[in-house]
Amino acid sequence: MGDFNQSVILEAIRQADDGLSRTELVAATGLSAQTVTNITRRLLGDGFIREAERRINGPGKPRVTLRLIADSRFSVGVHLDPAVMTFVLLDLSGAVVRRMSVRTPAKEPRLIIESMAATIEALIAGSGVDRTLIAGVGVAAPGPLDTQKGTVIDPPKLLGWHRVPLRAVLAEATGLRVVLEKDTTSAAVGELWKRRGSADDSFVFVYLGTGIGAALARDGEAVRGSTHNIGEIGHIIVDPQGPSCTCGLRGCVEVVCTPEAIVERAERAGVFQDDREGSDAAAVDVRFSELCDRSAAGEEQAREVLRQAAEHLAVLTAALTNMLDVDRVVVGGPFWARFSEIALDVIPGSLERASATRALRSLPVAGTVVGDDVGAVGAGCVVLDSLLSPRASDLLLDD
Amino acid sequence: MGDFNQSVILEAIRQADDGLSRTELVAATGLSAQTVTNITRRLLGDGFIREAERRINGPGKPRVTLRLIADSRFSVGVHLDPAVMTFVLLDLSGAVVRRMSVRTPAKEPRLIIESMAATIEALIAGSGVDRTLIAGVGVAAPGPLDTQKGTVIDPPKLLGWHRVPLRAVLAEATGLRVVLEKDTTSAAVGELWKRRGSADDSFVFVYLGTGIGAALARDGEAVRGSTHNIGEIGHIIVDPQGPSCTCGLRGCVEVVCTPEAIVERAERAGVFQDDREGSDAAAVDVRFSELCDRSAAGEEQAREVLRQAAEHLAVLTAALTNMLDVDRVVVGGPFWARFSEIALDVIPGSLERASATRALRSLPVAGTVVGDDVGAVGAGCVVLDSLLSPRASDLLLDD
Repeated sequence: MGDFNQSVILEAIRQADDGLSRTELVAATGLSAQTVTNITRRLLGDGFIREAERRINGPGKPRVTLRLIADSRFSVGVHLDPAVMTFVLLDLSGAVVRRMSVRTPAKEPRLIIESMAATIEALIAGSGVDRTLIAGVGVAAPGPLDTQKGTVIDPPKLLGWHRVPLRAVLAEATGLRVVLEKDTTSAAVGELWKRRGSADDSFVFVYLGTGIGAALARDGEAVRGSTHNIGEIGHIIVDPQGPSCTCGLRGCVEVVCTPEAIVERAERAGVFQDDREGSDAAAVDVRFSELCDRSAAGEEQAREVLRQAAEHLAVLTAALTNMLDVDRVVVGGPFWARFSEIALDVIPGSLERASATRALRSLPVAGTVVGDDVGAVGAGCVVLDSLLSPRASDLLLDD
Repeated sequence: MGDFNQSVILEAIRQADDGLSRTELVAATGLSAQTVTNITRRLLGDGFIREAERRINGPGKPRVTLRLIADSRFSVGVHLDPAVMTFVLLDLSGAVVRRMSVRTPAKEPRLIIESMAATIEALIAGSGVDRTLIAGVGVAAPGPLDTQKGTVIDPPKLLGWHRVPLRAVLAEATGLRVVLEKDTTSAAVGELWKRRGSADDSFVFVYLGTGIGAALARDGEAVRGSTHNIGEIGHIIVDPQGPSCTCGLRGCVEVVCTPEAIVERAERAGVFQDDREGSDAAAVDVRFSELCDRSAAGEEQAREVLRQAAEHLAVLTAALTNMLDVDRVVVGGPFWARFSEIALDVIPGSLERASATRALRSLPVAGTVVGDDVGAVGAGCVVLDSLLSPRASDLLLDD
């Protein structure tokens, strides 16, 4: 139990803004004074924590505050989106030390992974951080994943990716420990870290990337599901009049709510005069931005397309919250910020009307507190989790 | 921790078909020999367990096997379905000692609860069980519920039920402790009891009652959600061409998959010559049976309606398993047995094709091992859980 108790103590110190004394740690963790003394001695020796100021609280000995040494360890978080790859270097407190992003090259998977490795090297080199202090690389990738083998199976939006051994190839290329996590679950982990979630925090995270996914947090922890593929919601039907889907039905999230589907709807509605340049994820990204800009500038047709999209997302969100019975909804991902104003105008009201528990409580809807890089930041937090937190994700790196 | 450890030991003894010796209990629970000795002495004194045969395993002292005394405590489980109320008396092993069922009277809620109380008295009296040995009554009711207040809020299929204080009224009428649980979650608890689930058992339970609901088990325990209303899936769309729904969309589970919706589809298809007698839940029940009988007798039109219904349930099941990432699907509820043959012919194949994790594993689909009374049996198990198991549901009875 030694490592587990060490994680409990480190996590308690991390979560306390003002640090904690040994006496406070005993109260916070329920561990014995002797155990706290032994473990904090070890953590001081390893340079994870330091003794800060002495505080006097009434009579008795002054108490020495223990604080995390944020720059004692680091992690790299990578978000692999079909349109863009985002890289962050996090310190042990979860703060972003350095950030980079590059367009995802339209190449075969192994070349993309090589480009990923090169950017990771540039990120580390440019930060001036000692490479030996980097605990590992977390990669957030679209599911489904085989997390046991560390492979990306066949995400609908990553063309040409079939059972790509991303973890092994990237570990080989960087010499660093690599952990693979779903982009959506990474985002939920990032949200939990940033909020320093209370023990009963429960939310569904609706993730707007090139594809749409969901993640789940319950009791202050990310729920991953039995194959770590929780949240594959692409074929929930949200618009019975919507376009046909490859699954044989129509109006699925996949063909209604994705940025590509929204852009196509705007094109059909005549929002754009000219044809789209290219059909790849990057071209969709450009058009989606333009659509949001035009809506913000007051163009009614553009605004109507986005309002429709928000209504469809509300149908999805209601299906998820009614199924999952969580306390709140968090939305985020690379397409969120541009779309958030209209979405936050539409979704809460629609959700309230459709909520099976409206007689008991209302369901707050909010954008992630982490921002646009939530996938990458969350992937870095998954690595830090394995150092700090007494959580199931500890097991992730040990296979 | 005394009560918690006692629960751990009782649960371990319950789950072991052949009983357990004190030495085996130490190995199974991780508790100290002294703690096991103290707690088992108390349990022997209270009459929950008994010393059975002595076994000789190699050298050393013979080991005394400890067994649960099944008739030391009992619970009552009630399933309130709009069509029928089912009552079971369970012993401490979870076995059904006695069973009764009555048509749910078409009366106002308080009169229904009085009828419920009267049947509970008849059940107990007819069993010959000493009333003081009954630990409580578990009631499985359609959601949404306010489990804190013990009220049934406004289930779509229970007409006239608005914030009915079922728990308080029934406790007053019977003088017994009453716990209220969703019918779907009760069913999942029943399944977990009967299977003596392994610690990593995870499944979604698709429940076919007058309404359709779902429940979730993860890590061998029922997941209840933050308001105990998990699994409200009535407005997930499964048939984009389906009938309009009160929610403003069309083709929801509520208007496609319920027995009433299936019967209506059969009526539109001309399966029945005459009009239905009455529009209540009981009349639907009769027609649903007739539809299944005709299908079994080879009537093609009847069979086609049921195959369609099974396909729609497969769409629902795929939405749930892709979202939840569980290991298997369990189906049950009062309408399951009649429908199971066709459903088990259709659902597994459709689910396999629609599963996001089909590259990783297949998803078994099976009827509940508990049978038709799974809601009532599960409700009784919720009460036994509070006596035996170190689980979250311990808290249910203490409010």
